[in-house]
Amino acid sequence: MTTGLWDRETFVENFRAIGERAYHDKHPFHIAMNAGRLSAEALRGWVANRFYYQQNIPIKDAAILSNCPVREVRQVWIHRVIDHDGSAVAEGGIEAWLCLGEACGLSRDEMMQDRHLQPGVRFAVDAYVNFARTQLWPIAVASSLTELFAPDLMTARLAAFEKFYPRIDSRGLDYFRQRTSQARRDSDEALAIALKYCNTPELQREAVRALEFKCDVLWSMLNAIHHAYAGNC
Amino acid sequence: MTTGLWDRETFVENFRAIGERAYHDKHPFHIAMNAGRLSAEALRGWVANRFYYQQNIPIKDAAILSNCPVREVRQVWIHRVIDHDGSAVAEGGIEAWLCLGEACGLSRDEMMQDRHLQPGVRFAVDAYVNFARTQLWPIAVASSLTELFAPDLMTARLAAFEKFYPRIDSRGLDYFRQRTSQARRDSDEALAIALKYCNTPELQREAVRALEFKCDVLWSMLNAIHHAYAGNC
Repeated sequence: MTTGLWDRETFVENFRAIGERAYHDKHPFHIAMNAGRLSAEALRGWVANRFYYQQNIPIKDAAILSNCPVREVRQVWIHRVIDHDGSAVAEGGIEAWLCLGEACGLSRDEMMQDRHLQPGVRFAVDAYVNFARTQLWPIAVASSLTELFAPDLMTARLAAFEKFYPRIDSRGLDYFRQRTSQARRDSDEALAIALKYCNTPELQREAVRALEFKCDVLWSMLNAIHHAYAGNC
Repeated sequence: MTTGLWDRETFVENFRAIGERAYHDKHPFHIAMNAGRLSAEALRGWVANRFYYQQNIPIKDAAILSNCPVREVRQVWIHRVIDHDGSAVAEGGIEAWLCLGEACGLSRDEMMQDRHLQPGVRFAVDAYVNFARTQLWPIAVASSLTELFAPDLMTARLAAFEKFYPRIDSRGLDYFRQRTSQARRDSDEALAIALKYCNTPELQREAVRALEFKCDVLWSMLNAIHHAYAGNC
């Protein structure tokens, strides 16, 4: 095993290898979802629990902003908070996810009050926020690189929902549509930052480990959701 | 001494009383500055040291964002980070302060590298950032309420600089011009948030104490600057 600095291609390849092995599109619950095998209740359970993740994304990204002393990086990063929180001129991802929940039969109140939140999901999401707060900011940036794999997942998910869950109003799927392009831009930005600032052998390896950690967060969420709603699928 | 919940007027009055007693416009260095008694070197020392504060403001505001679970508050707060960092469409406060420094004869490099930074200034600013990171977010919001007193200070400072330090190019003073109106809007927003979310007797008193702490930060910075550059004024 080499201990030196990876060239750019090797570094990127090591990120991609994590995704191929550990990204949550390979989780049994996600496979069942995209194969149309989830009950309406299981789907609602997934949407309601994943909402806790969505709510915490701007908190996580603001933590990265707050840990980063490089103004140019903050200038690139800040739109993520606005993309999820929304602004006076545009609804954000959190609002879009609430619409998805409503299209699945959940009320805003039960989502906002975390009424369906599973302890294992809270645990995993809180661990992710805590990671972003406490790690070096280039490492926290690297942990967001699951976005490298998100556009393909979003495209497949959108097609699966339209095919297998036709009772969900198509407007409820806008979050997936938005994220397909947003995730591509976001991962380009995050990858450029990670490649530039994870600039020692140690930081490179920590960055890859951070992406693995993030995959574990997403995987653990699905474990908890699977256990609660779809033990038999 | 009452121990109950203050009404709105009393709460605001208690904030204002702190400013009247402890805001840094009453510091001997600030009085000397506005009376035209500073040497060019002392003025440069102030500008270079205050730059460390300016650089840390978006870090502090991102910490508040990251600690705040209320989306509506984050939507209001986030422009502060952009106002200082700047964006693709507008230069921010940090850039405006660099221009002030150049107009005073400092180079960008010596400011960016903190070459003139006094330990007491670093200590005070770092304590402020740490306060924002670790306190409850409504209390951290309250600590920003020195903005209540900033418009008057900026107006007086602008007039003093134009009168007493004519060698500083007028464009270098744009930061003060921008902040006169920005601070009014910002303090309106912060006051509304503090009044709403500091909603117990304990939080109200902590909020007033937070504003006092913030005045101590600004005062300590001027102590360190006074000591380093203007012991005789």
